[in-house]
Amino acid sequence: MEQAIDPKARPGFVGRAMHALASELYPICRSITGNGLRQTLDLVGEHIPLQRFEVPSGTEVFDWTVPREWNIRDAYIKDRSGRRVVDFRACNLHVLNYSTPVHRTMTLAELREHLFTVPAHPTWIPYRTSYYKDAWGFCLSEAQLAGMADDEYEVMIDSSLSGGSLSYGECVLSGNGGSDDEVLISCHVCHPSLANDNLSGLSVAVFLAKHLLARERRYTYRFLFIPATIGAITWLAANREQTSRIKHGIVLSCLGDAGAFHYKKSRRGADVDRVVTHVLRTSGHAHEIRDFMPYGYDERQFCSPGFDLAVGCLSRSVWGEFPEYHTSADNLDFVTPEALEESLDVVTAVVAVLEANRHYVNTSPFGEPALGRRGLYRSVGGSGVGDENLARLWVLNQADGNHSLLDIAERADMPFTLIERSARELVASGLLVDPADVRPDSA
Amino acid sequence: MEQAIDPKARPGFVGRAMHALASELYPICRSITGNGLRQTLDLVGEHIPLQRFEVPSGTEVFDWTVPREWNIRDAYIKDRSGRRVVDFRACNLHVLNYSTPVHRTMTLAELREHLFTVPAHPTWIPYRTSYYKDAWGFCLSEAQLAGMADDEYEVMIDSSLSGGSLSYGECVLSGNGGSDDEVLISCHVCHPSLANDNLSGLSVAVFLAKHLLARERRYTYRFLFIPATIGAITWLAANREQTSRIKHGIVLSCLGDAGAFHYKKSRRGADVDRVVTHVLRTSGHAHEIRDFMPYGYDERQFCSPGFDLAVGCLSRSVWGEFPEYHTSADNLDFVTPEALEESLDVVTAVVAVLEANRHYVNTSPFGEPALGRRGLYRSVGGSGVGDENLARLWVLNQADGNHSLLDIAERADMPFTLIERSARELVASGLLVDPADVRPDSA
Amino acid sequence: MEQAIDPKARPGFVGRAMHALASELYPICRSITGNGLRQTLDLVGEHIPLQRFEVPSGTEVFDWTVPREWNIRDAYIKDRSGRRVVDFRACNLHVLNYSTPVHRTMTLAELREHLFTVPAHPTWIPYRTSYYKDAWGFCLSEAQLAGMADDEYEVMIDSSLSGGSLSYGECVLSGNGGSDDEVLISCHVCHPSLANDNLSGLSVAVFLAKHLLARERRYTYRFLFIPATIGAITWLAANREQTSRIKHGIVLSCLGDAGAFHYKKSRRGADVDRVVTHVLRTSGHAHEIRDFMPYGYDERQFCSPGFDLAVGCLSRSVWGEFPEYHTSADNLDFVTPEALEESLDVVTAVVAVLEANRHYVNTSPFGEPALGRRGLYRSVGGSGVGDENLARLWVLNQADGNHSLLDIAERADMPFTLIERSARELVASGLLVDPADVRPDSA
Repeated sequence: MEQAIDPKARPGFVGRAMHALASELYPICRSITGNGLRQTLDLVGEHIPLQRFEVPSGTEVFDWTVPREWNIRDAYIKDRSGRRVVDFRACNLHVLNYSTPVHRTMTLAELREHLFTVPAHPTWIPYRTSYYKDAWGFCLSEAQLAGMADDEYEVMIDSSLSGGSLSYGECVLSGNGGSDDEVLISCHVCHPSLANDNLSGLSVAVFLAKHLLARERRYTYRFLFIPATIGAITWLAANREQTSRIKHGIVLSCLGDAGAFHYKKSRRGADVDRVVTHVLRTSGHAHEIRDFMPYGYDERQFCSPGFDLAVGCLSRSVWGEFPEYHTSADNLDFVTPEALEESLDVVTAVVAVLEANRHYVNTSPFGEPALGRRGLYRSVGGSGVGDENLARLWVLNQADGNHSLLDIAERADMPFTLIERSARELVASGLLVDPADVRPDSA
Repeated sequence: MEQAIDPKARPGFVGRAMHALASELYPICRSITGNGLRQTLDLVGEHIPLQRFEVPSGTEVFDWTVPREWNIRDAYIKDRSGRRVVDFRACNLHVLNYSTPVHRTMTLAELREHLFTVPAHPTWIPYRTSYYKDAWGFCLSEAQLAGMADDEYEVMIDSSLSGGSLSYGECVLSGNGGSDDEVLISCHVCHPSLANDNLSGLSVAVFLAKHLLARERRYTYRFLFIPATIGAITWLAANREQTSRIKHGIVLSCLGDAGAFHYKKSRRGADVDRVVTHVLRTSGHAHEIRDFMPYGYDERQFCSPGFDLAVGCLSRSVWGEFPEYHTSADNLDFVTPEALEESLDVVTAVVAVLEANRHYVNTSPFGEPALGRRGLYRSVGGSGVGDENLARLWVLNQADGNHSLLDIAERADMPFTLIERSARELVASGLLVDPADVRPDSA
Repeated sequence: MEQAIDPKARPGFVGRAMHALASELYPICRSITGNGLRQTLDLVGEHIPLQRFEVPSGTEVFDWTVPREWNIRDAYIKDRSGRRVVDFRACNLHVLNYSTPVHRTMTLAELREHLFTVPAHPTWIPYRTSYYKDAWGFCLSEAQLAGMADDEYEVMIDSSLSGGSLSYGECVLSGNGGSDDEVLISCHVCHPSLANDNLSGLSVAVFLAKHLLARERRYTYRFLFIPATIGAITWLAANREQTSRIKHGIVLSCLGDAGAFHYKKSRRGADVDRVVTHVLRTSGHAHEIRDFMPYGYDERQFCSPGFDLAVGCLSRSVWGEFPEYHTSADNLDFVTPEALEESLDVVTAVVAVLEANRHYVNTSPFGEPALGRRGLYRSVGGSGVGDENLARLWVLNQADGNHSLLDIAERADMPFTLIERSARELVASGLLVDPADVRPDSA
């Protein structure tokens, strides 16, 4: 089932494949529990190795309880003529997510308090939920509502709320070096037909995993495909002790639109914050770095004070700040193959820095080594020292074991990629060594 | 004699009462020792519980010696016709404060070197002193001086400089919790008829004490009513060991004019600096925060390196920066009930933050607690999280015992009052606890 | 041979003497080894006490080997008529420095790959070297090259490259207090007829040494006159253990032109960085402070990670940033007596701060001492405290043993010279003491 991606095929192919995965998943009616969620995990499992977990309803998870499982087969509002004026089969957003079952006839006046619209955008259907309070309702466009006569309607939601389980998936790609250190990549998979807020993050996660499958890995990568909030809390409750292995983490969401990148830093301030900032800054993409705040996606849970993990959140447009957010306009046209692939490139670059960001030591630290003799000091046309030479001098000067390559790149104000290439050349020449590679017990 | 103030009576009543106190004290001829100072302390003692101390002349206080006591009964310059052209009875600023006695007849030419005016403001009388060098003199307006013919004058100062004592007052309001931790509020009470530079700080201190009398207090509040410099040094010499109890302190001065607030930070950098800064920033009042410098009011003494206390200085207009400073124009018109009450409000808010600024601990730190279940997550009209909900999330996220409520307010960029209200709600729900309240030995 | 300078003779005399020294040294053909370098050190030794060291060719110095010694007697390109169209006797820049010997006849076409010009400045001769790769060549102006017919030429370089030694000089001025702490002043002396990039730094170093000869010294001053790079590495290899004595250091270069001052900070961040910054900031001279980078002059070696010394680099115009750099236009007209003397003044001021920058302790730290009684609080005309009084208050307030005079000057935002004068007055009055002066074992 695993498919490794040929990086040379880019650009174009990968972005289209990412969009195709989103398209395949789009029609499914997901929620925080239920069969739509399971179908989604099944499809992810066709791309990458995925282990599925089921946590029974009623399980205590910290301050919360895993809720009853919700499933839905059909729903509609029929007018007197029997025509479905609102039809779940046309769009799963039409039902208030987690609606209790109902089958009644009622006047429009009675019905109105169960109806939700987006007044500012008359043709859009909103996305609404009621996970923790029993309720039922329908979401529809202002236009649909305007077309409904002041009459009686048959209202039917064929849903069930009963004991079952909460599902989530994990894809674990072990590191090659035997280290327990982990990188956590998390995305939520609980929204029905919403493309940017849900499927874009899922798609970037899946294709990042494919990319890593084909490579040597210093870290173990743990990908979570979980329902938002209750899923993260459930996972944390089941993995409380192991979270200390997580050295870096990113929550992925809203990565398919054409907006500027936004990265929200972790609560504690962490290397991953500096890495993402560096990658975005040197990428040329428009971007904004934001401070942590305790609202947003599942970084809220990972950064709760009992865990305080080094986890930030990467998005393009930010939840709640684009009009399509949580409406039917967040659809497959709103996310593009180009934006998805660009997001994957950024995340891949972040992972590359995490992998390569070591603390080297200069083996010839007294004065500068004679680089010319080793062919490592190349004359350049102009009068300056040249970026390649200067990068080598920076690495040698700072490689005292206290500075990571990222520290050096930042002090030198040079791209990590150039600093890292210099480090590799210097390692090859014997002028640089990673102490972790020469410890007797690591042989 | 203690009078508690009903806070509901504001605005208006309190400001007028503050101004009335200043008006009552205004005519008294104060100095760094003597009966005018004692009369002032007597009047303060009619409003709040005050203990008076008398330190004998000649007492060694660190590098200084308590000076002889100065008292004055009358003073004048009479012309040949016997008319008082300068009359102490009309304004006590007319005499150089701490003048030695004199009774002579002399020409205007001889007299001139004993006369002081304010050339830039022809109708104002300056305020001058000579505490530590025997001298006598008169202060008068340029207009008065211009009207004096080149003739002989009878010069008389009926003052005495002799062994006595230096007086100061302390009002101590003990904390309710049994803690020794203290807040120091200090003002100088040694200037004669000057309203802003002297009486405004005294009035704010008196009414802050009245306010605190009616309340539970976490801290002990120690109010000092002292002569400037020598009074502070005398108090410090007498209380050297106890100063370690002082956790926060503010010197109050020049708080009755209509100018912007100015706060000068402590030498060491302290919580009180952050608290005053936060209160001023969120108050909407024009204000400026200044770095410590070793000149100004008695914070100079409290922040001397041997003590280095957490004491700043709050003013509206700053000494020496308003033209009325140390002249007869710093009178009862220059200070207003509105400005005095506004200053009291700021100081009261500062004290409220000091009292409420605790280090709470989230009792459910693993993931977010289920706030909705507890009625602590209220749905809001718009799409955002809402300030009330967000404040609760901030408190829960940061309440790991390392962050005070002020730390949280600053990181959240929210008013302390909102953060503190959230904390109270969370304490009531059991989600937050102050570890100091649950230690076995504090029961 | 030592000549002390009378500081009263300034301005003018010293600058002219500095320029005269540069003029005397200018014609000598220096390189990183050889007799030109020895002649240069001989001339320096006529001004200040100098010890010369000779390190044999082939000596291993860390990652490098001391090269063969280079000497040159004559060199030319003669045309068919026997006329020297390029003549080493006219300008020693004409020969590629470290050229191997050659004597051949060749066509202009063959010769061209051994010729170097400055295309942008047709009348200037470039300065080029080939220390570590055997090569020969000539440097000439574009105009000269344009005048050479497409003909045969006799090419002759009468040089030798053979076993010998690398020479350098040290001038050590011991501190008076018996302390081992050192200040390092280093300049390179390996360039032939280049005035700013070479001789200006040498001249400032020589005259700073003269200045210090006539004075009490807290520190030992070690002046290095060394060939760039290999000289610094050779010196470090010979003095590896003693480098821990170096508390402050400055590399001097390009100090004779009229440009703004530039100071490049040390790798580690050090007191010398703050001192030079303070002196430049309060000097009124245009200046720029730059962060450390591992390229430039010998601070590269002193700041290599194995040493990481507190050494920065002071220049006026920066190498590579002025068009005359490494060309015949960097001549005796490009450096001026005024600029040289101004540079010396800055360096002398830096040394004055290093010498005077002590950690004093207030002997009367409880409250302010009574300054008026000691004549240390002088009344001033205006209403303010006055800079002299305020400086004394700052010193007393901050002199708790944790703050140097420079710390105090920076916090007070006052010139070090004012703060230091205040400190001397307070020491004289007994209110301030340097703990180092009162330790029993320092008696």
